[in-house]
Amino acid sequence: MSKFAENPILSMQKIKPANPKGLRDFLPFENKNREYIIDILKHTFESFGYDSIYIPSFEKYETLNGKYGEEGDKLFFKILNSGNYLDKESLVAQIAAGEDTTKITAQISEKGLRYDHTVPLARFVSQHQNELTFPFKRYVIGPVWRADRPQAGRYQEFFQCDIDVLGNPSLLSEVEIIQIADQVYEKLNLNVDILINSKSLFQGICELFGMDEHRQKIATLIDKWDKIGREKLEEEFYKIAAFEPKKVKDFLDFLDNDKALEELETSNENLKKGLEEIAYIQKYAKSKNVKVSNKLVRGLDYYTGIVFEVVSTEMAYGSISGGGRYDNLTEIFGLKNMSGVGFSFGLDRIYDIMLKLGKFPESTAQDRILILNMEDLAMEKNMEIAKALRTMGLQASVYPSRAKMDKQLSYADKSKIDFAIIIGDQELAQNQVTIKNLKERFQATIDFSQIENYFKK
Amino acid sequence: MSKFAENPILSMQKIKPANPKGLRDFLPFENKNREYIIDILKHTFESFGYDSIYIPSFEKYETLNGKYGEEGDKLFFKILNSGNYLDKESLVAQIAAGEDTTKITAQISEKGLRYDHTVPLARFVSQHQNELTFPFKRYVIGPVWRADRPQAGRYQEFFQCDIDVLGNPSLLSEVEIIQIADQVYEKLNLNVDILINSKSLFQGICELFGMDEHRQKIATLIDKWDKIGREKLEEEFYKIAAFEPKKVKDFLDFLDNDKALEELETSNENLKKGLEEIAYIQKYAKSKNVKVSNKLVRGLDYYTGIVFEVVSTEMAYGSISGGGRYDNLTEIFGLKNMSGVGFSFGLDRIYDIMLKLGKFPESTAQDRILILNMEDLAMEKNMEIAKALRTMGLQASVYPSRAKMDKQLSYADKSKIDFAIIIGDQELAQNQVTIKNLKERFQATIDFSQIENYFKK
Repeated sequence: MSKFAENPILSMQKIKPANPKGLRDFLPFENKNREYIIDILKHTFESFGYDSIYIPSFEKYETLNGKYGEEGDKLFFKILNSGNYLDKESLVAQIAAGEDTTKITAQISEKGLRYDHTVPLARFVSQHQNELTFPFKRYVIGPVWRADRPQAGRYQEFFQCDIDVLGNPSLLSEVEIIQIADQVYEKLNLNVDILINSKSLFQGICELFGMDEHRQKIATLIDKWDKIGREKLEEEFYKIAAFEPKKVKDFLDFLDNDKALEELETSNENLKKGLEEIAYIQKYAKSKNVKVSNKLVRGLDYYTGIVFEVVSTEMAYGSISGGGRYDNLTEIFGLKNMSGVGFSFGLDRIYDIMLKLGKFPESTAQDRILILNMEDLAMEKNMEIAKALRTMGLQASVYPSRAKMDKQLSYADKSKIDFAIIIGDQELAQNQVTIKNLKERFQATIDFSQIENYFKK
Repeated sequence: MSKFAENPILSMQKIKPANPKGLRDFLPFENKNREYIIDILKHTFESFGYDSIYIPSFEKYETLNGKYGEEGDKLFFKILNSGNYLDKESLVAQIAAGEDTTKITAQISEKGLRYDHTVPLARFVSQHQNELTFPFKRYVIGPVWRADRPQAGRYQEFFQCDIDVLGNPSLLSEVEIIQIADQVYEKLNLNVDILINSKSLFQGICELFGMDEHRQKIATLIDKWDKIGREKLEEEFYKIAAFEPKKVKDFLDFLDNDKALEELETSNENLKKGLEEIAYIQKYAKSKNVKVSNKLVRGLDYYTGIVFEVVSTEMAYGSISGGGRYDNLTEIFGLKNMSGVGFSFGLDRIYDIMLKLGKFPESTAQDRILILNMEDLAMEKNMEIAKALRTMGLQASVYPSRAKMDKQLSYADKSKIDFAIIIGDQELAQNQVTIKNLKERFQATIDFSQIENYFKK
């Protein structure tokens, strides 16, 4: 019996290897760049005293459902129940009768994949409130999933890197978030604008124009401004109500003018509150990147105070970070009066931008060493060298099979190895090793006992 | 209009916050311990020259289906298609007619969550074969998902930390894997047995007892030995075939005797091959933890050579790592002659064992500093201090709101802060700061300009 026939996998039909749509693999050199960004984020978050927690990828269906608006309910991924999920007569009858898919979904799926890190955090904080110390500062770096139509800069799995502070109503947390954003983008060598706005300011402006009655719907519209353009935006307004055209035009002109608020004298309470918030943040954050944007409303229902968004000034690629204050998010899970503020770095878009702008550093942090595999009799020595170099903190391994020197050196070259160490028959006889510096293209033969000294310098 | 009424989320019914069954959150101090293990794994893998890649969590249904046996097909999680997945008359008719659930699933789910890291790796390597350098050494640390019935040590999401070498048939990779396992468990301060066996040895033993005809089914049985016990195991044998009882007994006695092979003189080719493989590995791995176990077969269909499994010698908790050589796994994706060997560390079980055995280190690596928030006038100084200390590589932040000193110090205590820095009205007047060492319970008041010097020592 051949091995092929024995192994049931191999008798299966061949499959063309491919990712599902909207997903992408990262090769070693690509992932090294991704990890470069992650390391900077992680180190910065920790230096500001944020702790990491771990929340699994699945949440109960009811934890996610209804938290992201109608669109979000469609876009979070549902996991099919295990076993005979159709084994209910009433369910089969509903399907046969053409019942609405959403109602069927709730019966065959008890779990969904997280859509962001914020709602799971609200669930976590409510559930573990007695085990946590408040103000609670946590960071997370991990994937979220959305069933969006795949397009440039939009993936079905992407990494959000979030910081959140819960249980602190003070604007100092907003200040800290801006300091963190400044530091991260400085380390990444990216030029950005940190756009900020306040929900109070937006409310005040709506009041100023007598449009506050429709504020929520207007906010959802304004959020689409960059996507659909000014002209289409104006048209959409009249679907909300029969506004006076001049009013809509003036309102949008006001939002679009970054100086509009500076020139305004007002007694509107919400405007005054919003302006004070922003002045406080600017006083302490001392950031040259912060810009007030009246157009920034961020559609998500749950923001209640300051909102942020970061865009590259070197390349148009949409928002690469964003967040804001959400004062009531844990209430749905039974925990009241818990103010929170959060901010999310979009790893995938940051990666895409850095790649296109050529911002990744050329060199790797650490020397990589390959010990060539030339003589069976040298194998114990090869292993000894690798072990000694690793003990010194270097990356070292033995080429895993006998092969021609050319082949092994070509592998070293492609794998970005810095040094090759060779014990051939001559070296073996003389108790020596040859060390090739592959980057600077020179070599030296030294005594076996001198290897560690060689790499100490 | 109250805020409550405005925000549609808050008008929803309250939800009891809870994880789905079989999943667990990790609190900050728990996750610190988890990260402690991850850092050791990552650093060790890299020191041996393994690179990381990134593969998304979703694979196409057909990539996963059929790769893990009948049981695995049930246990990988299926993701429900988006949109109106029931919008096909033929499908509704099948459901109404009571068609088999598995057949329905394939029509309403195009994607699944990875069940392990090995099949996705085989897909990745086949897909990107022209962009990779072979032998290809990669590591991954990330979650996998299985719809197993939740129980002690078994979770529906758990982390597998894998190393794999593809494109190298030499046993040196098996040697390297044992060296890595030895080093990881030594750094973690865990005592383990690294059990190894060879598929050739198992085949040889089956041949010796004239049972080779049923080898695949016997392997599946032997895999359950520890779970069901010897007595039940014997009973199960007679469901495979009408074996002679003495033969079954002798066969199991042989497998259960670690010395049985040492005493054997044989001309069986498979036995000789297996014994040579193991002798080679022991010669170069030089590990005191390696033990040959004839009972170790690992049920998964895809192993073809050496297999490994690691168990704690301090606590019975099942296998905490395992792997083996798989010679044909990429063939289903169209890539032939690609030998591979892999090994997986089970993060969750290692975590559980270390927790129960008290093996986590007490202290954190880095000093954590909290600047108390006592005087509004001191705020700019507070921020300046925090920034200066962070620049020195320390973790430092300002308490995010004004509060009584007791409250802030209690927060510092619970958050495992090492030093508190205080600028009260007196310190402000004198241009000084008070530094409290919270671990060793003493304090000092120094000039503002001396803070960095204080922390340099």
